[in-house]
Amino acid sequence: MTTDLTTERPADRYPSRTSTEPAIVARHDPVVRGHAEQGPLSQDQLDQFDNDGFVLLDGALAPDEVELLLDELHRLGGQPELRDDDRTILEPGDDVVRSIFEVHRISDVVARLAADRRLAGAARQVLGSDVYIHQSRINYKPGFRGKEFYWHSDFETWHVEDGMPAMRALSASISLTDNDEQNGPLLIIPGSHRSYVTCVGETPEGHYKSSLRRQEYGVPDDASLAELVEEGGIASMVGGAGSIVLFDANCMHGSNGNITPHPRSNVFLVYNSVENQLVEPFGAPQPRPTFIASRDFTPVPPL
Amino acid sequence: MTTDLTTERPADRYPSRTSTEPAIVARHDPVVRGHAEQGPLSQDQLDQFDNDGFVLLDGALAPDEVELLLDELHRLGGQPELRDDDRTILEPGDDVVRSIFEVHRISDVVARLAADRRLAGAARQVLGSDVYIHQSRINYKPGFRGKEFYWHSDFETWHVEDGMPAMRALSASISLTDNDEQNGPLLIIPGSHRSYVTCVGETPEGHYKSSLRRQEYGVPDDASLAELVEEGGIASMVGGAGSIVLFDANCMHGSNGNITPHPRSNVFLVYNSVENQLVEPFGAPQPRPTFIASRDFTPVPPL
Repeated sequence: MTTDLTTERPADRYPSRTSTEPAIVARHDPVVRGHAEQGPLSQDQLDQFDNDGFVLLDGALAPDEVELLLDELHRLGGQPELRDDDRTILEPGDDVVRSIFEVHRISDVVARLAADRRLAGAARQVLGSDVYIHQSRINYKPGFRGKEFYWHSDFETWHVEDGMPAMRALSASISLTDNDEQNGPLLIIPGSHRSYVTCVGETPEGHYKSSLRRQEYGVPDDASLAELVEEGGIASMVGGAGSIVLFDANCMHGSNGNITPHPRSNVFLVYNSVENQLVEPFGAPQPRPTFIASRDFTPVPPL
Repeated sequence: MTTDLTTERPADRYPSRTSTEPAIVARHDPVVRGHAEQGPLSQDQLDQFDNDGFVLLDGALAPDEVELLLDELHRLGGQPELRDDDRTILEPGDDVVRSIFEVHRISDVVARLAADRRLAGAARQVLGSDVYIHQSRINYKPGFRGKEFYWHSDFETWHVEDGMPAMRALSASISLTDNDEQNGPLLIIPGSHRSYVTCVGETPEGHYKSSLRRQEYGVPDDASLAELVEEGGIASMVGGAGSIVLFDANCMHGSNGNITPHPRSNVFLVYNSVENQLVEPFGAPQPRPTFIASRDFTPVPPL
């Protein structure tokens, strides 16, 4: 079911990078479409996702599951042929592996994780349809010199650069190491998923190559960020190894750097509704490579 | 009582940057020399300083005192003539003010703060003698793009580059804004003041200019840091505006960056014992400028 770029493009309901002035506009799409009885998320968890834009499931994976994934992470990080692969991103100014993309196609262990009901089932429940993997990656986030990820809405990029029409996708961050307040945990602005912060500046060609190391376009402005934080505060996704954060595609999120010796490694999986398949980019000359934004819309099979 | 460089130099009891292998060696100097009855620190506080290398005094300054200092900070940051002053350090790759040095000579408000018994009195008590200001600065640490300060022992630099003979100095960080876990608080490794981590690499001439923006020499190695953290953990100096952290010159400390909108501004004062006056640098071709390492050993007068 791999498809070419759709030639008909729906109207752009989320324009960004088209103006010289940033703005905060309201979200047009529902956040939660499913119900508690479908599982695995409870009504409380669905309500929290609806209100805050995320839910933190501490201890979701058992220690032996975490162990298996950590072994896989180290195995992949040590493969010389992957180091030269386009899908492998190095830390800025360093040759330490930062991330490996499309890892669910590289690793059976990650593929099985991606199909797990705790993740894919929750995604189907929230998004109200079958889902496919829009993006997957492992992030090494080593200690000592872990760089920050500046604030951003993933959806802004996925819409502008990848052609994702609606806010009907969610991300799962699966921690393979303990996250405390000091080692650069994921920071989310609660409630920010209900606001769309349009960014300024047009997207140059080939932008993705540098943006995976350091974002220059699709960066929200200070005033909008301050407004969102004023309203919702900042929640730190703190939990043990094996905790899962599910968060809406439009959540404003980021993380500080990490000078502690403690790494913050995770697996990152993005589920998109099969009813929200990519079209041509809404604001970029060319779509990004499919290892970053898949155009294989095959549903994740229910396990 | 301004003096020239002392020509006789005591033996170097803390060599660093002289070997290609880092090492952790024991401290030769006592940590606390005074007693509770001298005040202002209690016996518990002195014991904590002795054990951990720091003491956090939450709410030490009243709100109106913080207000006065914040006004002064903004006034100084807005002075165009100070922007071109050598004593003013800008953020890397940016023209935002990061720090202003020797600020107790620039500002009467800061000079009065530096002489306050809660600070100078505590320094006399811990160090067991009269004290003088070795260094003073205000740090703006703005929100959004606040950069990290990597782990370091101030003493290592003060010894090697400035010629401070012994570990008989302490720093006071006075918070002018709230410090929470998210906006890059000062991180200290408890107990690290009892170990001296020698660093590798010789100090090049004029190193201070770049080191105030980004440290390249006097940087502890990963293995030593991991060992210190394994033993002592990492303490976050979290507290409201007006809190004071007093910490030993040899504490291993640093801070993560700060992507939150919340600044983390502070006044930073270093008190050195008058019995520990600077001599020629122990490991640098030339001493750093006096606005970074004062050679005016006039005691702070008791208030």
